[in-house]
Amino acid sequence: MPASNELDFLRVVLVAARNPLNIGAAARAMSNFGFPHLRVVNSYEAAFREARSAVGAAGLLASAEEFKTVAEAVADCTLVVGTTAVRHRELQHPLRRLEYGARLIRKRLGTSRVALLFGSEKFGLSNAALSHCHWVMRIPTSEENISMNLGQAVAVCLYELVRDSKAAARREKVERATGEEIERITATLLEAMRGSGYLERRPIADVEERMRRLVRRLNLPARDAVVWLGILRQIVWKLRSEDRLSKI
Amino acid sequence: MPASNELDFLRVVLVAARNPLNIGAAARAMSNFGFPHLRVVNSYEAAFREARSAVGAAGLLASAEEFKTVAEAVADCTLVVGTTAVRHRELQHPLRRLEYGARLIRKRLGTSRVALLFGSEKFGLSNAALSHCHWVMRIPTSEENISMNLGQAVAVCLYELVRDSKAAARREKVERATGEEIERITATLLEAMRGSGYLERRPIADVEERMRRLVRRLNLPARDAVVWLGILRQIVWKLRSEDRLSKI
Repeated sequence: MPASNELDFLRVVLVAARNPLNIGAAARAMSNFGFPHLRVVNSYEAAFREARSAVGAAGLLASAEEFKTVAEAVADCTLVVGTTAVRHRELQHPLRRLEYGARLIRKRLGTSRVALLFGSEKFGLSNAALSHCHWVMRIPTSEENISMNLGQAVAVCLYELVRDSKAAARREKVERATGEEIERITATLLEAMRGSGYLERRPIADVEERMRRLVRRLNLPARDAVVWLGILRQIVWKLRSEDRLSKI
Repeated sequence: MPASNELDFLRVVLVAARNPLNIGAAARAMSNFGFPHLRVVNSYEAAFREARSAVGAAGLLASAEEFKTVAEAVADCTLVVGTTAVRHRELQHPLRRLEYGARLIRKRLGTSRVALLFGSEKFGLSNAALSHCHWVMRIPTSEENISMNLGQAVAVCLYELVRDSKAAARREKVERATGEEIERITATLLEAMRGSGYLERRPIADVEERMRRLVRRLNLPARDAVVWLGILRQIVWKLRSEDRLSKI
């Protein structure tokens, strides 16, 4: 996961976006993933104004920069990356999968500005817009429906930029019950089995070892072990008192 | 990237979704990433009907299953995973980052059904819905704006499920110009420099070696090398003919 000041180096550039909901959704995704700088090229004035109400992204939209041309919007960037759904069209550009492209972008962030371009909902980036790009990136969508909604495409690209590959390998630490707690649960369970007459009706060979393994396979978190022990103890207590009553 | 038949094992479950655009967007993302099975619990009838027009997801929406309760919607699944934006609330559930959670889900896909639950736009999953989950997953959004749009959250989660970690490490193969092509370009460039009088005005020591390194640093793709050589040859040809004319 890049440091948050590295995210300041990215410029998300929406070229000729037409739908205010999409502009708003793009801004919201930027806000969700901590990218503050939006640039808008040649969008319908009305669409841009209407988008300014996007949930949690009002500040970001208020500070968005507007440009007439792609050239102006990327003038201060050392790396310009286009996005496309297209795979087989002759792009005249290196085409990289998002997983790899994002890695290259991350390497650049923190030292100089990178522009990430998204085209219009209907047509994507024009060849003219693409000609400003160093290379082009595609989201690995399925052959049957390659074209993503603009807001969703922005969300997925930015997620890939902030995702932490180390987190994927990290095993979460849940405190597990200790051997002593497991043993206490096993003993109480056995008592409940005896008290309820279970063992009389279905005798089990090596019952203690078997139950100890059964309980151990539950792999109980420490705090759940306390709850189970309480439940079992109450059951045992009730079985005993019933037993006493029946003997009176 | 999981095999496409593995994606058949996932059930995307939208619980109490209210906005037809969001239901449609969720379906579109499923279609984009190749997950065919949508389940809808307790959604507004009207919203669900209206969603059926989502771009490229009509078939998927037509075959979506409707349920009255979460229990029914997850009854045939061996793993039930909730999604949440919340981090610090006492969830009573193991909370896993998407990168790690998706890995656990992928391991299960292909052998048995997994349900991935998304809550309503406003409130997320209720505690009652969460109680059906084995654990809960969160997208690593920034502290300032943790809550994602439903359609975007679905897109990001499904992307993480299909993303190919090997693709991130893969270097793309662009065929580069050969030494012979680089040498021809260097020679033609030198000729153009001489022909234009550049070297007379600004003599360079070791000019051949210097230019060879300069051209080599361009790291030209093979097909661009051809274009550059053509341009330079034309310039040299023109310089020579100008030269001949001036001598007449």
